[in-house]
Amino acid sequence: MTGRGDVVTLAHGSGGRLTRDLVESVFRSAFSNPALDAMGDSAALPRVDGRIAMTTDGFVVSPAFFPGGDIGRLAVNGTVNDLAVAGAVPLYLTAACVLEEGLPLADLRRVAASMADAARAAGVAIVTGDTKVVEHGHGDGIFIVTAGLGRLREDAPPGERALRPGHAVLVSGPVGDHGAVIAATRSGLDPAGDPDGGVRSDCAPVHHLVDALYAAGVRPVFMRDPTRGGLATVLAESARAAGVTIEVREDDLPIRDGVRGVCDVLGLDPLYLACEGRFVAVVEAADAARAVLALRAVPGGSLAASIGSVIPKGPGPVLLRTGFGGRRVYDTLASDPLPRIC
Amino acid sequence: MTGRGDVVTLAHGSGGRLTRDLVESVFRSAFSNPALDAMGDSAALPRVDGRIAMTTDGFVVSPAFFPGGDIGRLAVNGTVNDLAVAGAVPLYLTAACVLEEGLPLADLRRVAASMADAARAAGVAIVTGDTKVVEHGHGDGIFIVTAGLGRLREDAPPGERALRPGHAVLVSGPVGDHGAVIAATRSGLDPAGDPDGGVRSDCAPVHHLVDALYAAGVRPVFMRDPTRGGLATVLAESARAAGVTIEVREDDLPIRDGVRGVCDVLGLDPLYLACEGRFVAVVEAADAARAVLALRAVPGGSLAASIGSVIPKGPGPVLLRTGFGGRRVYDTLASDPLPRIC
Repeated sequence: MTGRGDVVTLAHGSGGRLTRDLVESVFRSAFSNPALDAMGDSAALPRVDGRIAMTTDGFVVSPAFFPGGDIGRLAVNGTVNDLAVAGAVPLYLTAACVLEEGLPLADLRRVAASMADAARAAGVAIVTGDTKVVEHGHGDGIFIVTAGLGRLREDAPPGERALRPGHAVLVSGPVGDHGAVIAATRSGLDPAGDPDGGVRSDCAPVHHLVDALYAAGVRPVFMRDPTRGGLATVLAESARAAGVTIEVREDDLPIRDGVRGVCDVLGLDPLYLACEGRFVAVVEAADAARAVLALRAVPGGSLAASIGSVIPKGPGPVLLRTGFGGRRVYDTLASDPLPRIC
Repeated sequence: MTGRGDVVTLAHGSGGRLTRDLVESVFRSAFSNPALDAMGDSAALPRVDGRIAMTTDGFVVSPAFFPGGDIGRLAVNGTVNDLAVAGAVPLYLTAACVLEEGLPLADLRRVAASMADAARAAGVAIVTGDTKVVEHGHGDGIFIVTAGLGRLREDAPPGERALRPGHAVLVSGPVGDHGAVIAATRSGLDPAGDPDGGVRSDCAPVHHLVDALYAAGVRPVFMRDPTRGGLATVLAESARAAGVTIEVREDDLPIRDGVRGVCDVLGLDPLYLACEGRFVAVVEAADAARAVLALRAVPGGSLAASIGSVIPKGPGPVLLRTGFGGRRVYDTLASDPLPRIC
């Protein structure tokens, strides 16, 4: 029982019986774990043995369902990945939804099932949550905010300011898939169905790939998942923070044919397109080959590649060296080709 | 510099330069602390010495500014209070905003200043955040989701299921202020300006009141802040969870004249109106008098009162015993007199 009819109503956000019914029937049944099942306003959790990391991300992606994932899967993996690339082992997530009156309950159940599935796959528990409802026309279906807590590894990466010339730059897989899928879907293309290179969102957790690096004895200098703003923005921001330049070898950069196709049709640059299941790792040059091998041995990492290196500060934060010997300067994304990408 | 003009644009949500400028100029400057200033996607935090509590809450209150507070103050205090009533010492908050295109930057700065002020007052640090922007007409000014982490006291309350006949029920102050203010404001009344009992939101942190209980040697059985659904809903839910009834003495229940006035005019029941700076505590009968004295000695607790007691399961979860010897049954709020109260 979640109230009259099959859509979200304002009464579902009242904090009363209908709110509790909705939470019980949609979220608790999907996410069930001991901390959540206690159904307090706070989750009581065990001691964390070490330093901790906290993160939060809001998700407003439009459309909410897309080839390769949906807003629920994105919301869980996005926060799992923010923890993982900080060098933390993801443990607990919170989830707050802002629902628009009229949202079909079937959509909400589908999103909750995706969240539960993604949490299981990433080995995290969604321990507490909150649900609010706004009037029709004052929201857009569903917005989700997740926050996450992880245990920081003792040898967590020192971070972007530690970048030095000579360091190698890796990506864990092809870039731009998520952005290309959202752009294509909005434009009425069918990205997944293209026989010449169908493309789906790369939405996935990366914590096991990070684990593989550490297990191989690699201690990354810096890691980041290139979501909004894409690979070029992440590289440019970190290069600027360290006062260096990052040189990227275009020929070594993994980009799927389907993503290139979408970019050609829509006039987008894959280096500015969001990824939702990849990360950039900067490592010591001597570790680069071992790191790539370690990533390639793990599911989801088969196309990992060493794509460039940190060099002394040059004419721009990121230099793309093309196959024909040319150079193109990239900087932080300044405009917004794709609002509501995640 | 936060972009062209003086309103939020979609480009502020792109994840590129304008996002960073907005975050730097509005949020980081307001919230500054070492973990936040590192500006990673995750905050790196020290070890927490003990068990932990996590909570999250979404805030969609309309209007965003009201007598006694605003959505920013509410978002910080709401999460601080969820931790405090769970028996946790609030430590760290995360904050994610979903902004509507066109929101005046002045409003955003005002909200950020309120959040910073509330965090300072509660002794917590806002350690990481996220900002998303949706198109005009797909949001409503500003929505905020906060998540919080606290250190659980070793003698945290066992919780609502531990309620037993004989326990005393306290409130830390007058109930219904926040709900009355929002209802009055939406109805075009001027609740704060009423010379016969102006009323303002009670929006405030309660952690220091909880501290005062513990300092007085009181170990509460159960605490909860009566937000959405109000006092009656919190009491009804906890009574149902424990299989008991809670009897409330109307004459002992602190309700401000201004709140009664708003309720009379608008046909509302103060027992179902949200509080945002109060909590209910259930304590052993022998501790009740000491607990009330301890609360009254602390700023914000001067009108704390013992309002009732737990009795064996009766005809309803909550029985209000009126001054004239009558009885009224209350249950969980079933409908929604006031959407978007918080």
